Amino acid sequence: MGKLRIAVAGVGRIGKIHLKNLLQNDDIEVVAVMDPMEASRHYAKGKNIQFIASSYNELLEIADFDAIVICSPTDTHADYVVLAAKKGKHIFCEKPLDLSLERVNEVLKVVNENNVKLMIGFNRRFDDEFKKIQELVQNGAIGEPHIVKITSRDPEAPPINYIKSSGGLFLDMTIHDFDMARFVVGKEVIEVYAKGAVLIDPAIGEAGDIDTAVIMLTYADGTMAIIDNSREAAYGYDQRVEVFGSKGMVQANNNFHDSHRLYNSSGIQAALPLHFFIDRYAQAYKTEMSEYINSLKNGGKVPVDGQDGISSLKIGLAAIKSIQEKRSVHIDEIN
Amino acid sequence: MGKLRIAVAGVGRIGKIHLKNLLQNDDIEVVAVMDPMEASRHYAKGKNIQFIASSYNELLEIADFDAIVICSPTDTHADYVVLAAKKGKHIFCEKPLDLSLERVNEVLKVVNENNVKLMIGFNRRFDDEFKKIQELVQNGAIGEPHIVKITSRDPEAPPINYIKSSGGLFLDMTIHDFDMARFVVGKEVIEVYAKGAVLIDPAIGEAGDIDTAVIMLTYADGTMAIIDNSREAAYGYDQRVEVFGSKGMVQANNNFHDSHRLYNSSGIQAALPLHFFIDRYAQAYKTEMSEYINSLKNGGKVPVDGQDGISSLKIGLAAIKSIQEKRSVHIDEIN
Amino acid sequence: MGKLRIAVAGVGRIGKIHLKNLLQNDDIEVVAVMDPMEASRHYAKGKNIQFIASSYNELLEIADFDAIVICSPTDTHADYVVLAAKKGKHIFCEKPLDLSLERVNEVLKVVNENNVKLMIGFNRRFDDEFKKIQELVQNGAIGEPHIVKITSRDPEAPPINYIKSSGGLFLDMTIHDFDMARFVVGKEVIEVYAKGAVLIDPAIGEAGDIDTAVIMLTYADGTMAIIDNSREAAYGYDQRVEVFGSKGMVQANNNFHDSHRLYNSSGIQAALPLHFFIDRYAQAYKTEMSEYINSLKNGGKVPVDGQDGISSLKIGLAAIKSIQEKRSVHIDEIN
Amino acid sequence: MGKLRIAVAGVGRIGKIHLKNLLQNDDIEVVAVMDPMEASRHYAKGKNIQFIASSYNELLEIADFDAIVICSPTDTHADYVVLAAKKGKHIFCEKPLDLSLERVNEVLKVVNENNVKLMIGFNRRFDDEFKKIQELVQNGAIGEPHIVKITSRDPEAPPINYIKSSGGLFLDMTIHDFDMARFVVGKEVIEVYAKGAVLIDPAIGEAGDIDTAVIMLTYADGTMAIIDNSREAAYGYDQRVEVFGSKGMVQANNNFHDSHRLYNSSGIQAALPLHFFIDRYAQAYKTEMSEYINSLKNGGKVPVDGQDGISSLKIGLAAIKSIQEKRSVHIDEIN
Repeated sequence: MGKLRIAVAGVGRIGKIHLKNLLQNDDIEVVAVMDPMEASRHYAKGKNIQFIASSYNELLEIADFDAIVICSPTDTHADYVVLAAKKGKHIFCEKPLDLSLERVNEVLKVVNENNVKLMIGFNRRFDDEFKKIQELVQNGAIGEPHIVKITSRDPEAPPINYIKSSGGLFLDMTIHDFDMARFVVGKEVIEVYAKGAVLIDPAIGEAGDIDTAVIMLTYADGTMAIIDNSREAAYGYDQRVEVFGSKGMVQANNNFHDSHRLYNSSGIQAALPLHFFIDRYAQAYKTEMSEYINSLKNGGKVPVDGQDGISSLKIGLAAIKSIQEKRSVHIDEIN
Repeated sequence: MGKLRIAVAGVGRIGKIHLKNLLQNDDIEVVAVMDPMEASRHYAKGKNIQFIASSYNELLEIADFDAIVICSPTDTHADYVVLAAKKGKHIFCEKPLDLSLERVNEVLKVVNENNVKLMIGFNRRFDDEFKKIQELVQNGAIGEPHIVKITSRDPEAPPINYIKSSGGLFLDMTIHDFDMARFVVGKEVIEVYAKGAVLIDPAIGEAGDIDTAVIMLTYADGTMAIIDNSREAAYGYDQRVEVFGSKGMVQANNNFHDSHRLYNSSGIQAALPLHFFIDRYAQAYKTEMSEYINSLKNGGKVPVDGQDGISSLKIGLAAIKSIQEKRSVHIDEIN
Repeated sequence: MGKLRIAVAGVGRIGKIHLKNLLQNDDIEVVAVMDPMEASRHYAKGKNIQFIASSYNELLEIADFDAIVICSPTDTHADYVVLAAKKGKHIFCEKPLDLSLERVNEVLKVVNENNVKLMIGFNRRFDDEFKKIQELVQNGAIGEPHIVKITSRDPEAPPINYIKSSGGLFLDMTIHDFDMARFVVGKEVIEVYAKGAVLIDPAIGEAGDIDTAVIMLTYADGTMAIIDNSREAAYGYDQRVEVFGSKGMVQANNNFHDSHRLYNSSGIQAALPLHFFIDRYAQAYKTEMSEYINSLKNGGKVPVDGQDGISSLKIGLAAIKSIQEKRSVHIDEIN
Repeated sequence: MGKLRIAVAGVGRIGKIHLKNLLQNDDIEVVAVMDPMEASRHYAKGKNIQFIASSYNELLEIADFDAIVICSPTDTHADYVVLAAKKGKHIFCEKPLDLSLERVNEVLKVVNENNVKLMIGFNRRFDDEFKKIQELVQNGAIGEPHIVKITSRDPEAPPINYIKSSGGLFLDMTIHDFDMARFVVGKEVIEVYAKGAVLIDPAIGEAGDIDTAVIMLTYADGTMAIIDNSREAAYGYDQRVEVFGSKGMVQANNNFHDSHRLYNSSGIQAALPLHFFIDRYAQAYKTEMSEYINSLKNGGKVPVDGQDGISSLKIGLAAIKSIQEKRSVHIDEIN
């Protein structure tokens, strides 16, 4: 078999990361890149890539490839996935497929009908820290899980315009934590209770969103999870997971700039957590793409599939409903 | 002024701690001890204490003292406090005053009418770790508090008989965390949502209680707190507090047996947290009693008063109601 | 058997610690205290102690006791031990017995002839941190020890007058580390190479001493130890031990004021080590005295004896010689 | 200016790392690779490299390049550097240039005469951990340095054959620490005292080397450094630096596999340090090559030059002499 031929649609912040990682992967060849922005196309030039397209249609027509990596804006995901699936291409798509559960169901139907593989970009599952936690839990190191605790705080809030169209905190940010809650114990969530507040920036409230939240999840067997979120942690990106069980507890901590300790008369100082996701999850993005390529090559299942996307979306929609109706919401209420 | 004359009622596990700390305090004299158990009275003998009584009435009649430290069983607290207050004695009483809010209100009325000082034994406020957190928060080190996280897990469940009469997890165990939630940010809680499960021992469920819980508190200004509890942490007593705010975060960790790190081919090993409250809070009990004595000597307020007892009790009762009615409960519903 | 009757000679800084710990020990009775200073005698009064003497002779004449705890100035140690031994009293003596090896040998001869027990106050052996290290090494947790590392830095230099009569850094400060080097691996040192400098205060140099030193010790089997000392660590008392061996490594860290971590935009802050020995070794002093009392009661060996004092003194004298002659010194050269 | 044209001589373990990092550097073009081994040349093929040579002469003759990266066996370094310098090529050469000080001096003479830039591969200077330490020291964060402590232990001993020709522990392993000792405080070492032992493998002793060592360095101003080395740490690669000074202390710790903490009834477990230099110094190798390229592009000084190579070599030779003659050796004795 020759090398897998990969196309990349969208070369923005995340697209650049994926493109760079793909170019270092000896198992594949990046044969085409698409971006409507001149600057992004310019970035891709000089990287020995055959086709540089400015529209998705152009890309699908002219390029001959096996799989596509979709990193374009969220509102294009569903359409792009459908079009690629119909052409028989395997797909890696950044989360979320869509903010509408109905639309996501439609998209997955097309994907299934066309028998292509679809992987959703929940990058944190590939982070060495969280993978280790998941493995230890799975291997019984802490016995039966009882309480999951996820801390997820961004260093700074996104622009108000982004917030207006992102689906809000639960769908643009916490959705990663909902996926983590499922991933780390391998169980499905059945109930959601959420509480939110605008404590950082009133403009976020005016845009109809919250900036601080605490969410309680319940799994079918009674295991409970608590997630706490903030749009703005003064000390940088805070990404921690703890799982407590019948035989012990396991924790994953942040990654820090370095390990130095400075002792002086006023105390002991240490370096801050890596500032944001591009640094913190550099290794995760690399592993994520590598595992995606492996699943294509080896014919196995993709590590994160459409159903994972749906499950997290449903928890997110339940959290929104919980806030609106000030009550706990069963996942079956979301359809 | 001569030395303060102190009586101690109840010389069980906690009573012994308080008695020992009192005997080392040069500002006071322990003049009387009461315990219905022969063994406990025997323990007190040979410590140069004037009166050793076997009943509370006997103690009140024969002994001449300024203040009493009540460490007898919970169901005696209310009566003992009332009797002491009517005799004009200052009182330190282990928590809780009573499991009934109505009864606690009656007791406090008597205390106020007799103009005596009543301190409630929320020992954790005097722990150096948590005091440091409270001070840093109060001094603005983290700006405005947004999220409080309290982990509180016991190393082993109490006997089923204890659970049957203790008022249950929220009133015998979480009540300390409710007090901590108020203490650490100096704000009142207005809403409670609780979720519980029986994941450790079915017998606890049969006794009508839960053994694992997650509780979400909301303060008037939108600040949120999450508490997680377990009756049984395989690795020992787990007592941590984290407060996240607009300018930073502060954390208190457990106290460990020692600081050793053992590196070998299978990993790095460290010592466990101190096993339970007697070790973990040894310093706290000492400071607590010393601050109580100071407040008597110097005529100031006691650091934890009857209203603190009521506030935590109300949060506990709201948590019970929340579990029963599967909804969030406003603190004003508890009366 | 009635309670052991203990006398305390010298109630300065260390004497007060020992006295306080003895007064809390239910196995003994403190029957006499001696101090030439009025203030120290005043301190001892009101503690229910039978005899308060102002001279050592007076103490020996009037008081009837089984054992004595000597915490008087260093230059009195040898005489006091000899006098007590001749009266058949067991003796706990603060280190060092004397700065002269000859005199120490004479003293031990008298001790042996009179068949009394003599314990030397190397308090650090009783520190829970270092004890744990010693136990792990002894139990084979790291296999055969290869490299011992001891960091020992004081928070501030003593007064110049003290330095002039203390025997210098190696005999007043490093002597504890020499004992630790022997204790932690249970082996004898045969060679010493030392290097010192005056980097903190020229007055220390003018007084004939050094304030910063690095010492390399070799044990008979080739195991090596390195000690580093400073009279002044800006961040407080720094007391760490590491032992590296064929199967691993074990480390003991400092004890800190508390465990808090404060995260803000400028970094992460933590509390400093406990400032000096009175705080850091509070537990060690307590355990030390308790083990001494136990060895008297139970008839066993004292945990640190005169030979331990001699061994550390010889290493100290070898270190001094090493500095003077700029070469490594074999322990057999010291006699 | 076009892209810098780089050749790589030697594509073994280190050569592969440098080649990979160079191929990702957009500022340069790798135009030629040389390795006498078929397998290594095969590795280089398919990476779009113009010339793949099997001998150094062939490389110099046919390839047109600006600078060469020499990663061939140690005994070729001196010749290769001389030949490249005479052709006017800039040179990056893995340490050491040679084990003979005389030969190194000759080589540097040729380098200087031909006015080419030579950088020596002391990779650890580019490690983020140690760079941070160096910066903090340089910026006065700890005041005047007094004591430097370097721990450097390999996870496993190299093959005996390597040891026989490597120059021994001080020249193949500790030489990195000698460079670190100079780098981290920016001062020259004037005196060396070393002590070594064979504690791991008698075969190492039979090969004329030691496997465990402690080295004491003195700088001109009295600052002291201590290095401890082992060929075999059961728990992996141990690379730590601590600098203590008049105003504080700064420490760099190891890098670990991950940050997880597993608490269970037997203790707390954590992940080991990264196993060896390829993992631990992956970032350092990348930064090293990038800074080398920058110095070529921007016309500045190389960050580690031939004099740095000489200085570390002299300390190493002094350490060997110290062991042989059992005394401290002044650096001026080495010529």
